[in-house]
Amino acid sequence: MSLTSTSSGGGQPGRLMASEIAEQPAVLARILDDGLTGVRATSSEILARRPRFALLAARGTSDHAALYAKYLFEIVLGWPAGLASPSTMTTYGARPDLRDVLFIAVSQSGGSPDLVESLKTARACGAMTLAVTNAPDSPLAAAAQLHIDVLAGPERAVAATKSYTAQLLSLYLLVDALRGGEGAGRGVVEAAASVVGNLEPVRGVARRLLHVERLVITGRGYAYPTAREAALKLMETSYLSAQAFSAADLLHGPMAMLQEGSAVIAVDPGGRSGQAIEPVIERLVELETDLTVVGPVGDVAATAKHLPLPAGIPEELSPIIEIIPLQMLARELSVARGQDPDAPRGLRKVTKTW
Amino acid sequence: MSLTSTSSGGGQPGRLMASEIAEQPAVLARILDDGLTGVRATSSEILARRPRFALLAARGTSDHAALYAKYLFEIVLGWPAGLASPSTMTTYGARPDLRDVLFIAVSQSGGSPDLVESLKTARACGAMTLAVTNAPDSPLAAAAQLHIDVLAGPERAVAATKSYTAQLLSLYLLVDALRGGEGAGRGVVEAAASVVGNLEPVRGVARRLLHVERLVITGRGYAYPTAREAALKLMETSYLSAQAFSAADLLHGPMAMLQEGSAVIAVDPGGRSGQAIEPVIERLVELETDLTVVGPVGDVAATAKHLPLPAGIPEELSPIIEIIPLQMLARELSVARGQDPDAPRGLRKVTKTW
Repeated sequence: MSLTSTSSGGGQPGRLMASEIAEQPAVLARILDDGLTGVRATSSEILARRPRFALLAARGTSDHAALYAKYLFEIVLGWPAGLASPSTMTTYGARPDLRDVLFIAVSQSGGSPDLVESLKTARACGAMTLAVTNAPDSPLAAAAQLHIDVLAGPERAVAATKSYTAQLLSLYLLVDALRGGEGAGRGVVEAAASVVGNLEPVRGVARRLLHVERLVITGRGYAYPTAREAALKLMETSYLSAQAFSAADLLHGPMAMLQEGSAVIAVDPGGRSGQAIEPVIERLVELETDLTVVGPVGDVAATAKHLPLPAGIPEELSPIIEIIPLQMLARELSVARGQDPDAPRGLRKVTKTW
Repeated sequence: MSLTSTSSGGGQPGRLMASEIAEQPAVLARILDDGLTGVRATSSEILARRPRFALLAARGTSDHAALYAKYLFEIVLGWPAGLASPSTMTTYGARPDLRDVLFIAVSQSGGSPDLVESLKTARACGAMTLAVTNAPDSPLAAAAQLHIDVLAGPERAVAATKSYTAQLLSLYLLVDALRGGEGAGRGVVEAAASVVGNLEPVRGVARRLLHVERLVITGRGYAYPTAREAALKLMETSYLSAQAFSAADLLHGPMAMLQEGSAVIAVDPGGRSGQAIEPVIERLVELETDLTVVGPVGDVAATAKHLPLPAGIPEELSPIIEIIPLQMLARELSVARGQDPDAPRGLRKVTKTW
């Protein structure tokens, strides 16, 4: 592997990232229009094999999409699900008994050698294998029995945005098809468009966080992958130390880091996740942290800043929308700090790990 | 839940934590002397049911012990394994099909209501249930079909230390018994004693990290749970922003946060984990980060600081030893910063999450 800087081509800093963030409503619409047939065919092939367990393997941003899918498999389908540690198969040579297992590798590029090797090993060990990529010609797609193309189009910014929400919606549609659903989810297109068009609150939060060096992001249940992905975006574009905790884990230790003025972002999409995070938000308000809440209008502590979400998105689809203002925040904050989110230090688009 | 400070009783700051760190060789010896028979009986009961999958549920420090066990199940036994998200069953009411699943809940206190509820639900859904606690009279132990007592004795410091290494060794012995092993692991007692008695290098590192506000800790494979647990210890005792990344994930984004002088700790126990982390350590040296390596003597980059480990510990047992100098570092750093690791802000010993 090598660590290089990707030039943004001399353009405006963050231009690529902004344009890919703005593309998301169109990408989501494309998945619903053009992707659904393929997802349903994949679902039928899976159901014919009747797997009982899901294992998901991914790295980086895609790992957060895998985590979202894990919740869907467990909650919606009642399948036990786990995130595979690729190193057990690649570094340690584990050869697990994977009969009855659906092994899903999620990767934007489909090019990471350790994921390809994990998937091949999983297949050899008896799993049914599915690759979810943005690259149908990739080695990962070729190695898997089944492939879902997330149809995000070429992603040029180093910080993944549209490929993430495309992964989320594609995985949602797969799980929905596996439960015999009819492909709900049309509402996300309009919701994404409304968030993408609402830059002002994001700029307000970026101004207040301009000099922050440490930030904690929390969410629970379906909102936890959002917290994880938001932390990664902020780290890779703004270089601040952003840490995500499930609201439950936050109380097991990391709460000690927080005090008056500590910057915290809580994701409160309402629903059961919102109920579960409410007592944590109360504590964060009591502690007088510098709190920003991402959530539907009208549901936010008076002292908190607010990144508004449209109302009425079903909780299981909400992660597709919640992340967007946080992607926008990462971009705004990076540019406001004089950095270029299209050319993060020490990163390149395809990370090859062995 | 309530957030209270636990007083250290007016004693010397960090006295409790120091004494429980120092107890670890004795606790490990006790497990090998008194715990092995019970672990083997548990193993026989599990083998009679022939589960094929392991799901582990835990929070905080215990979650890192669960992650270690996940690696053992996958690598040593070839069982697919996953970390359960308790919220899917407690917050969302998931009722997964858990036939053929061994569901293991790991908790020092055995008192966290969401773990108890998860385990009860798992049992009702067909799983074989095992509680691994330091509290045989706890609700979690009562709810499970099987129980392993980690025999750490009462743990009074808020920052868990001896209960963590006791969980690791107990889970190792369980997996070893499941593979038909003979209870190797005796070497950890002497190794732990040698680390506990070697405070000087820890103090040296604590001096160099005295004013650090952000720290990244990395490890791969079996060493990754160590990185996670070390980060939690540093957060809860020294309030610094410590983040753990698997060496592979570090390259997917967070590397952008690092530059010349950034504080990084890499866990390099040798073995396959050591081979896998070597190229990452090379990059960290190239970047001129302020690097500390935890590893056996004689195996460290010349420019790095060193927290030495005894040589010759088998890699699968190494996490039991690796964490100890990092526990010591958390304590030293906290005290050197004028804080009391026995009375962290906003934490108490048993965290109740719903």
